[in-house]
Amino acid sequence: MSGEMIDDTTGGYEQIRYEVAEQVLTITLNRPERLNAFTRQMAEELIDAFDRADSDDEVRAVVLTGAGRGYCAGADLRSGGATFDYAEGAAHRDHGGQVSLRIFESTKPVIVAFNGPAVGIGVTMTLPADVRLASTEARFGLVFARRGIVMEAASSWFLPRLVGISRALEWANTGRIFDADEALAGGLVRSVHPPEELLPAAYAIAREIAENTAPVSVALNRQMLWRMLGADHPMTAHVLDSRAVQSRGTSEDAKEGVTSFLEKRPARFPDRVSADMPDFYPWWPAMPFRPLNPG
Amino acid sequence: MSGEMIDDTTGGYEQIRYEVAEQVLTITLNRPERLNAFTRQMAEELIDAFDRADSDDEVRAVVLTGAGRGYCAGADLRSGGATFDYAEGAAHRDHGGQVSLRIFESTKPVIVAFNGPAVGIGVTMTLPADVRLASTEARFGLVFARRGIVMEAASSWFLPRLVGISRALEWANTGRIFDADEALAGGLVRSVHPPEELLPAAYAIAREIAENTAPVSVALNRQMLWRMLGADHPMTAHVLDSRAVQSRGTSEDAKEGVTSFLEKRPARFPDRVSADMPDFYPWWPAMPFRPLNPG
Amino acid sequence: MSGEMIDDTTGGYEQIRYEVAEQVLTITLNRPERLNAFTRQMAEELIDAFDRADSDDEVRAVVLTGAGRGYCAGADLRSGGATFDYAEGAAHRDHGGQVSLRIFESTKPVIVAFNGPAVGIGVTMTLPADVRLASTEARFGLVFARRGIVMEAASSWFLPRLVGISRALEWANTGRIFDADEALAGGLVRSVHPPEELLPAAYAIAREIAENTAPVSVALNRQMLWRMLGADHPMTAHVLDSRAVQSRGTSEDAKEGVTSFLEKRPARFPDRVSADMPDFYPWWPAMPFRPLNPG
Repeated sequence: MSGEMIDDTTGGYEQIRYEVAEQVLTITLNRPERLNAFTRQMAEELIDAFDRADSDDEVRAVVLTGAGRGYCAGADLRSGGATFDYAEGAAHRDHGGQVSLRIFESTKPVIVAFNGPAVGIGVTMTLPADVRLASTEARFGLVFARRGIVMEAASSWFLPRLVGISRALEWANTGRIFDADEALAGGLVRSVHPPEELLPAAYAIAREIAENTAPVSVALNRQMLWRMLGADHPMTAHVLDSRAVQSRGTSEDAKEGVTSFLEKRPARFPDRVSADMPDFYPWWPAMPFRPLNPG
Repeated sequence: MSGEMIDDTTGGYEQIRYEVAEQVLTITLNRPERLNAFTRQMAEELIDAFDRADSDDEVRAVVLTGAGRGYCAGADLRSGGATFDYAEGAAHRDHGGQVSLRIFESTKPVIVAFNGPAVGIGVTMTLPADVRLASTEARFGLVFARRGIVMEAASSWFLPRLVGISRALEWANTGRIFDADEALAGGLVRSVHPPEELLPAAYAIAREIAENTAPVSVALNRQMLWRMLGADHPMTAHVLDSRAVQSRGTSEDAKEGVTSFLEKRPARFPDRVSADMPDFYPWWPAMPFRPLNPG
Repeated sequence: MSGEMIDDTTGGYEQIRYEVAEQVLTITLNRPERLNAFTRQMAEELIDAFDRADSDDEVRAVVLTGAGRGYCAGADLRSGGATFDYAEGAAHRDHGGQVSLRIFESTKPVIVAFNGPAVGIGVTMTLPADVRLASTEARFGLVFARRGIVMEAASSWFLPRLVGISRALEWANTGRIFDADEALAGGLVRSVHPPEELLPAAYAIAREIAENTAPVSVALNRQMLWRMLGADHPMTAHVLDSRAVQSRGTSEDAKEGVTSFLEKRPARFPDRVSADMPDFYPWWPAMPFRPLNPG
């Protein structure tokens, strides 16, 4: 991916596009002839793209969308009945989950613009994003039980935390296709837009972040919120944010943030995610994948 | 319960009815002269009924409702001031909680149709169900603080996960009776129906599950969603669903699910909960009851 | 604070007011000339006030509001760029978090009446309260990323549990100011009122609690709900509430609660938080603050 001759709009990828403009990276699922059906290669390209985004200080936010009339039709079923028959056996590591965990780890906020149907992994890979918006043309389905398989991409962890356990159970148990209004009512998306207004709405949020906030603050807040979802007591957050407030409170960012506010002018934060994350980051232990060994 | 001469509608029970039709089990709380007030016997019959449902592949979903004009008026108070004075002392095990944990463990989805007032245990025993619907005639109350007792049936764990901690605190602290619209606004029920349309709406969801989904997939999804609510990191879900996707991906259900979809025909899933749950199920350790021993 | 000559409305404090009437304590942030900006002294006075409230059986509920046209404008920025530069270094303990954890531990329900703008700590200190109401004049902002700092007051734990992880991420990432309607839609407040109807609505909830419920029941329910948010399995709640139901079921409160209900008269509960909390309370281990030491 480091190479010469990178295409302006693909960023060197084959199944996604990677485009940075005005501090916002747009990642576009790019198999429109297959409604952007998910493949192993797409998973690898997405993971690589989020690695690049994290290491590029020019990227302040990521917009994730689909080319053509769909967002992502789910796993590519061209292998038919053998689609989900993975050779690795019990050591298999779900591709969708690798993408989800990569987005979970992102230091940049991720905004999903559902331009059309999103089914299966098309929904579940977006759950670790920060914000989801839908076109009126979007449709959704957690269809796993209708295909004889199960929820993946760590969605059994993410989905009830986004939409509540009852809604998650109903959508997963029925496997039904539902429209953007039901997604909105359930909290899967935060707003619904006419097709032509979808991307502008997504970019408006991305720019609101890029123009007003300190990158290191956003990266820390994002990880604090996600990580504290798993903490059993608010004392854990108090211990963490006491250190974080102290650390960032002595930073040049804090001086600029307060001074610019008092002077009623836009802030220009000097610190960068690539160089200025505090010494206690990451504060969590590494968590390697180990195959399930019950009993 | 194995016996000869089982009544068609009671299933051999005294305080509930047990009726299977078109792959849906209806359990009806059946003490209408007492507004279906909860007793120790009713708890034991409910637990037995869910055991039967789990072992009967003909049952794809369970609808839980009440006979007469009430759903369940709460604990039967005919013992007056001694109602909650349990002989077992500190080793007492709450009856409502035994029902709740049994529903939590169910491999079949549970749909509650609140046909009328549901108070105390009448609400809390339904929290581990998948879907709750209410008649416009339904009323609700977490009245424990008005009776000088406390929340039970593990509702302090379930309720905030269903309706949010703020709503749970307000309902529990005030002990107020509230109507179906407030239950809907808070997310305690997913929809409100005229009385005559309540059961049809509940059966429509049950049939949507029965007609379209793979039983083993539904059983696994249900437990994955509930169990992952207690996991502190999405890696736990990724480890679990990697194994589960691999296991179910090689199943006859997956072949049928994908093939039937590509052939645009209804699926006929061969695998059964009684025989075909994967070898890693259950993946959690047994959790026996041990009386609280603080300090 | 025990002293003679305590002013009727301040309760002996300088930056807050402390007033008990009709079993309800009103705590008023009282630096109206600074929009009640938060200081270390205000934190200490708030913690002391909640200690007093817990030890005073006359106090059945707490209403928390602000003097003048604001609720709380956030940290007092009169130190400019050095505002968040705490001398203690890595051992610093966040003042807001100390207030939050104190409210979390309260045995009395806390009702927040947002009379005007609430920014930064003005929002985050209220998250462990039970109920939040807003005036139409209220405004809110999780502005930390705009000041170059991070979320504090243990809000990374509380906020997603109140408003969902997606809303929490959007509000924290953008740092935007939002109005009472957006706060209502997100679940940060439970209702919005014209300014003159705000305090009456807050007092109506406080009195509903004071007039109808058993103080020991409310104190236990409150801690059960908050503590079980961190439990990984409903069995933990079942173990706890089995003991709690048994303990309170044999109490004079339970006898009065059931008897008064059967006699259709108001209950007069004899037990008091100061003397009659059960022997298993608190059931959790002490959790001292230890500075973060990652790695």
